[in-house]
Amino acid sequence: MLAKTIEIKDKRVFLIDQTLIPYEEKIVEIKSMDEMYFAIKNMVVRGAPAIGVAAAAGMALFIRDIEDKKFTHEALRKAGTYLKQARPTAVNLFWAVDKVLDYSSAKKIEELKESIWYFVYDMAEEDIAINKAIGRNGADLIPVGKKVNVQTHCNAGSLATVYWGTALGVIRELHNRNQLNMVYADETRPRLQGGKITAWELLQDRIPVTVLSDNMAAYMMGKGHIDMIVVGADRIATNGDVANKIGTYGLAIMAKYHSIPFYVAAPVSTIDFSISSGKEIAIEERNAEEVTHINGKRVLPEGVSIVNPSFDVTPAELITGIITEKKVVSGNYRVEIKNLKLA
Amino acid sequence: MLAKTIEIKDKRVFLIDQTLIPYEEKIVEIKSMDEMYFAIKNMVVRGAPAIGVAAAAGMALFIRDIEDKKFTHEALRKAGTYLKQARPTAVNLFWAVDKVLDYSSAKKIEELKESIWYFVYDMAEEDIAINKAIGRNGADLIPVGKKVNVQTHCNAGSLATVYWGTALGVIRELHNRNQLNMVYADETRPRLQGGKITAWELLQDRIPVTVLSDNMAAYMMGKGHIDMIVVGADRIATNGDVANKIGTYGLAIMAKYHSIPFYVAAPVSTIDFSISSGKEIAIEERNAEEVTHINGKRVLPEGVSIVNPSFDVTPAELITGIITEKKVVSGNYRVEIKNLKLA
Repeated sequence: MLAKTIEIKDKRVFLIDQTLIPYEEKIVEIKSMDEMYFAIKNMVVRGAPAIGVAAAAGMALFIRDIEDKKFTHEALRKAGTYLKQARPTAVNLFWAVDKVLDYSSAKKIEELKESIWYFVYDMAEEDIAINKAIGRNGADLIPVGKKVNVQTHCNAGSLATVYWGTALGVIRELHNRNQLNMVYADETRPRLQGGKITAWELLQDRIPVTVLSDNMAAYMMGKGHIDMIVVGADRIATNGDVANKIGTYGLAIMAKYHSIPFYVAAPVSTIDFSISSGKEIAIEERNAEEVTHINGKRVLPEGVSIVNPSFDVTPAELITGIITEKKVVSGNYRVEIKNLKLA
Repeated sequence: MLAKTIEIKDKRVFLIDQTLIPYEEKIVEIKSMDEMYFAIKNMVVRGAPAIGVAAAAGMALFIRDIEDKKFTHEALRKAGTYLKQARPTAVNLFWAVDKVLDYSSAKKIEELKESIWYFVYDMAEEDIAINKAIGRNGADLIPVGKKVNVQTHCNAGSLATVYWGTALGVIRELHNRNQLNMVYADETRPRLQGGKITAWELLQDRIPVTVLSDNMAAYMMGKGHIDMIVVGADRIATNGDVANKIGTYGLAIMAKYHSIPFYVAAPVSTIDFSISSGKEIAIEERNAEEVTHINGKRVLPEGVSIVNPSFDVTPAELITGIITEKKVVSGNYRVEIKNLKLA
């Protein structure tokens, strides 16, 4: 069985180092708030829900390590601002930091040194419960007795969350119900999280998985191999536009062309209720070496220009439904998402 | 300046070894028909027009190397059948072998030993002339004075032909006319011919090129960075369906969604007048290691299943026009392509 992506134990924080998968499964201790900043930035931990909990744990490390007499709420806010800069797109990062700040605001440091660990631990456990609910809601979309081939992109799996996964939560639930035939995992250039991380985690759980290069998606759809697509999300606007790993947008266009249902699976915490359109979402441009090099070796010629947007925005019109822990929303996203907030 | 992909000189045949690009530019002599079979199969030479001329040169090597008294036309046909099995999709391979067989059919071996070299040399020179005409016809699509960003997929360049290129022939001509702003080259997994070969050959000729991962295409289109798309072809059916490198079909769907003109550039010899639909085109499935390994190193976890179709078929409805050496055909492909044959 897979280990938890983020383990909080005895006031210490441990992560699976995802930069080493599939070559090595190594648990690393993150020893300070600063180390957590770099773990997020360098994608030792990645995936919107996991980043959220990791950032909250980073705040707990700050609280743990600061001398009581040096602590101020202003200093904690600054730590939060710093952590939020680790990556710009996943809204869960901002959401989780703000949750910790809210929780801490009226508390004294002596109390926080204990209670913050319960708070962060609960947040991690809640993430798992949310993923299980997403999984059930998503699996309920498939008629009882029907077995399906599901395509997914990047990794919205156990390793993108504390445990279980969002898109892969749906897939795990289908597998448990004996309604899963095959997972088709896009390899997801440039970092190959689909080929490396999704394939690895599904193999660990003996869930059937086939990897394809990103550019094989239309071919597989056209041949009738894909029954539905489920992806995760890094940020969702209140009109239903979804920012997710680069390539999601193209996949949604291809799904539309082939009339294949295209679902997004994400917790309500991935919805950014402050923005009304995907156009407002900052897209992270990562460094050129992610494209020019693979496993440290240069694959493209010296001197070539590259682009490396890490995310894209899929317009709501291409999305069949958004699977949350509360319900599956579809249709008039603006109304449905507003209702989700109130629910 | 780029060397010719295939050099025929003093009854000897030389190829640029494309498996080494961009790391090394190495010319290798192909010393027998059998070596040519493996050079095609293992993609030392690739690209439909280049494969055609290379196969014809392979036939010439067979003629060169056989003892006069052992030669029969039946033996030559068998050599042709063997060469045709090197790869299944590019029709130019079959076309070129058949051209040699036609040419040879009424000739004696003593005569062939000399004249086949003129025949193959002329075929190679004609390929260059055809590419230049394709380039002019394609560039004529862009209004005088307008500068464009052109996206391309895989390598339909000088290295996919004897020299100059089909899709990159259009791009070279636009560059010469000062109407090219930027080439966006899809890296083209799994073998990365876009990132490796297209980028390398354009850099050699100082033509501005930016590489993107295949899954960044929709993002770049949505941001307005792409004015037109030009790709090559491995086989064209008489209804206008086009087999080309895997990923072309998805790219065409994304282009349609963004209302971006999508062109195919190919010589008339890439049209298979014997098939009336792309459904009849055999799609080569290449070995798993192309996907699981990059530069000899495993990138995907052990034991994972993969698919590796090397080509896909883009339906005519998604193609704005097919740029040939004779004219640009569009609209009613069935009629237009028939007229091309008669022209």
